Amino acid sequence: MRKLALFIATSLDGYIAKPNDDLSFLKLVEKEGEDYGYAAFTANIDTIILGRKTYDYVLKEIGAAHYDNGQRDVYVITRTEKPSAGRTSFYTGALTELLGRLKAEPGKNIYCDGGAEVINELLQHDLIDELTISVIPVLLGSGTRLFKDGRPEQQLQLVSAKSFDTGLTQLHYKRMRPEA
Amino acid sequence: MRKLALFIATSLDGYIAKPNDDLSFLKLVEKEGEDYGYAAFTANIDTIILGRKTYDYVLKEIGAAHYDNGQRDVYVITRTEKPSAGRTSFYTGALTELLGRLKAEPGKNIYCDGGAEVINELLQHDLIDELTISVIPVLLGSGTRLFKDGRPEQQLQLVSAKSFDTGLTQLHYKRMRPEA
Repeated sequence: MRKLALFIATSLDGYIAKPNDDLSFLKLVEKEGEDYGYAAFTANIDTIILGRKTYDYVLKEIGAAHYDNGQRDVYVITRTEKPSAGRTSFYTGALTELLGRLKAEPGKNIYCDGGAEVINELLQHDLIDELTISVIPVLLGSGTRLFKDGRPEQQLQLVSAKSFDTGLTQLHYKRMRPEA
Repeated sequence: MRKLALFIATSLDGYIAKPNDDLSFLKLVEKEGEDYGYAAFTANIDTIILGRKTYDYVLKEIGAAHYDNGQRDVYVITRTEKPSAGRTSFYTGALTELLGRLKAEPGKNIYCDGGAEVINELLQHDLIDELTISVIPVLLGSGTRLFKDGRPEQQLQLVSAKSFDTGLTQLHYKRMRPEA
């Protein structure tokens, strides 16, 4: 069965952005030729789901081609109906239904590209199967937290922990589920 | 100069306890003969500072001998004056003053044994020099957060990242300070 995977960077104190969507802390670990496994990760996915605010942010900062490049199905989670464009569709239904359907279809893995609201709703329903978290060596002090309060407890299995000479440590976990 | 060091375990989602001071998640990584470097860490310290609530908790759960064993100076940070007992004293002044004085004295390192309130006040004043954080492979979902919102940004240097076969990953950082 296809897996839903997270691949995201946080500060040591658990923020994915400083206030006002400031991602400049990622520059601390930028290094030419080092993508921290992103290309290998995305080679195993063919579907992206992400929140509407994250989609709009990427559209503005990077451009539409980042998602809408015909290579992958993109589901933007939103409360506002909007017609599909190419392989990008705007989904207003329940996440459990969407993921139930997608996971049952054949295909590569599904990548949740944020933001925190969608991630936490997925965690709430125990829909995330793999988490790759890159810990940046900084305390940001405030911002958008990756993990919000009020989720169910979930046990994980460590797959690997890798550290890089920039000080980034990448932790890879699988959700540990009771055998069916 | 003596360093102030943190040595603490958190869940992947950043909690040091579940609601009601429930520390049972630590059992997930308990393994006979494996102390995750705690003995080596404490061999390099001769002074402990901790919050009053943590002190009371340990007194109740483990017993007075855990701190008051004549081996180390213990400073309990509290708002209530109380006479010293052995090498344990109750400190009602400013943390900046206490740490300024302790760091200037000769001696081994100083260990902050929690809780979250004291840790965050120390971070607020940029007084923590080293952080060893053991990440337990679990999402707790709610509880007491290690890092509270509203601290200043602080850049860190990764010293080491070690993973253990129990799934615990131990991240060791130094505070990166501008050279004096």
